[in-house]
Amino acid sequence: MEKVYTVNEVREQVKAWRREGLTVGLVPTMGYLHEGHASLIKKAVEQNDKVVVSVFLNPTQFGPTEDLEAYPRDFEADCKLCESIGAAMVFHPEPSEMYAPDFCTWVDMDVLSKTLCGKSRPIHFRGVCTVVSKLFNIVTPDRAYFGQKDAQQLAIIRRMVRDLNMDIEIVGCPIVREEDGLAKSSRNTYLNEEERKAALILSKAVFLGKKMVEDGEASAAAVKEAMIKKIESEPMAKIDYVEAVDGLSMQPVEEIKAPVLVAMAVYIGKTRLIDNFIVE
Amino acid sequence: MEKVYTVNEVREQVKAWRREGLTVGLVPTMGYLHEGHASLIKKAVEQNDKVVVSVFLNPTQFGPTEDLEAYPRDFEADCKLCESIGAAMVFHPEPSEMYAPDFCTWVDMDVLSKTLCGKSRPIHFRGVCTVVSKLFNIVTPDRAYFGQKDAQQLAIIRRMVRDLNMDIEIVGCPIVREEDGLAKSSRNTYLNEEERKAALILSKAVFLGKKMVEDGEASAAAVKEAMIKKIESEPMAKIDYVEAVDGLSMQPVEEIKAPVLVAMAVYIGKTRLIDNFIVE
Repeated sequence: MEKVYTVNEVREQVKAWRREGLTVGLVPTMGYLHEGHASLIKKAVEQNDKVVVSVFLNPTQFGPTEDLEAYPRDFEADCKLCESIGAAMVFHPEPSEMYAPDFCTWVDMDVLSKTLCGKSRPIHFRGVCTVVSKLFNIVTPDRAYFGQKDAQQLAIIRRMVRDLNMDIEIVGCPIVREEDGLAKSSRNTYLNEEERKAALILSKAVFLGKKMVEDGEASAAAVKEAMIKKIESEPMAKIDYVEAVDGLSMQPVEEIKAPVLVAMAVYIGKTRLIDNFIVE
Repeated sequence: MEKVYTVNEVREQVKAWRREGLTVGLVPTMGYLHEGHASLIKKAVEQNDKVVVSVFLNPTQFGPTEDLEAYPRDFEADCKLCESIGAAMVFHPEPSEMYAPDFCTWVDMDVLSKTLCGKSRPIHFRGVCTVVSKLFNIVTPDRAYFGQKDAQQLAIIRRMVRDLNMDIEIVGCPIVREEDGLAKSSRNTYLNEEERKAALILSKAVFLGKKMVEDGEASAAAVKEAMIKKIESEPMAKIDYVEAVDGLSMQPVEEIKAPVLVAMAVYIGKTRLIDNFIVE
């Protein structure tokens, strides 16, 4: 497996693969890979001849008060994981390789990016769309893989690909959870022992809401109310949002009628965690 | 020469060309082609195996009070011109083929798009960057051709390509002028006989400024002042801007030291015309 640090090296390698008629999959990540990422890479290896994993802690998707500096990193462990699954290349650029000092072009979105996480993280999805556009142009993959845990991100990327006519298939992969239910996240590493226990309230609320919908509850208000009540039963939890939105437009719905995304962001101590379920 | 109206048809044809190892040039236009466009198409035909000319009057780069409805069109004449020069394909999509009703993704730029035409046309360059991104993703050209007459647009496209890592060579081509000096423009058709004569004041001011710089004048203020005085000598002319800016950042300069763009927008009656010269 190759470790590559510059845009030009990626381009040359991908062009060589293209000349051989090989297909290319891309798994964009911010590093500190866990089993959620592993599931994306596995899927990509199954579906493509060559898989590129980008490991880039993208500064433009973090707000000024957010956790860019604290975000966990372990590049050597990431490489071992990628190699063990069968990735062909890890692309690990410096921020300066991705953003010139006078960088000034942005890919941004109305509507879908203004709800849910977009409310409390106003520049987040602009940074995501911009860096993903760049990675798509650098790697020119046939397929790219994103986790359903970041459900709003996945919806936004799908919309961006459609709107800008990017010739790339976007593959969404299911949430991977710890044995006790907590959704896998690089940010789980921020939690101390007590917080780790308290964080279970997110998946408990997700399972509760999902069960209500499966049992026939169609009122978004009723489902949200039950989930909020559940989360509020945990003293360490502070809700950012609990919302039911249309699965394509990300706009709030009153009736739960597929496709719907029921999503939440909850602070456990200082750590902001997200979880969700989809009604398909 | 093929006339193609859908994104999928373009993609299929370009992929077939790629399988044959052919290179592809793109000339994006809004139609009503003149000799300025012809020079771009000629250059593209010289440098590429296949040339695609897009003829798309892009609604998103016009403000609500601008001339989208009035903009001249003559698709059959455009096709004849393209064919006579040797283009392989004209891509002429309906607006609905390019913009879904819930379209919401934009490519936009800070800094470069805020000066010159960006001041009086605030959403113009967002529309340009977005549609050009789309055309690049649809056609995936090796090279794309833009006129120096739209100098700010050319600088913005170059910056967009650099910032978003688009693997496309941007070729800028010189301004083509009428025999009397007026820069060729589809909008010249708006001018009545009297206005057509008055419009000569733009190129006269450009030639005056250029001469001053060639003769050693390095003060932007002095060059602008002389050009403004010249334009104001024409009673039908109303200046939108006359400005000297850095050729890369599009920010105003005090000293004329290459690369500098000296650009103007001037109303002749209701018609807004632009012209410029570059100090290289």
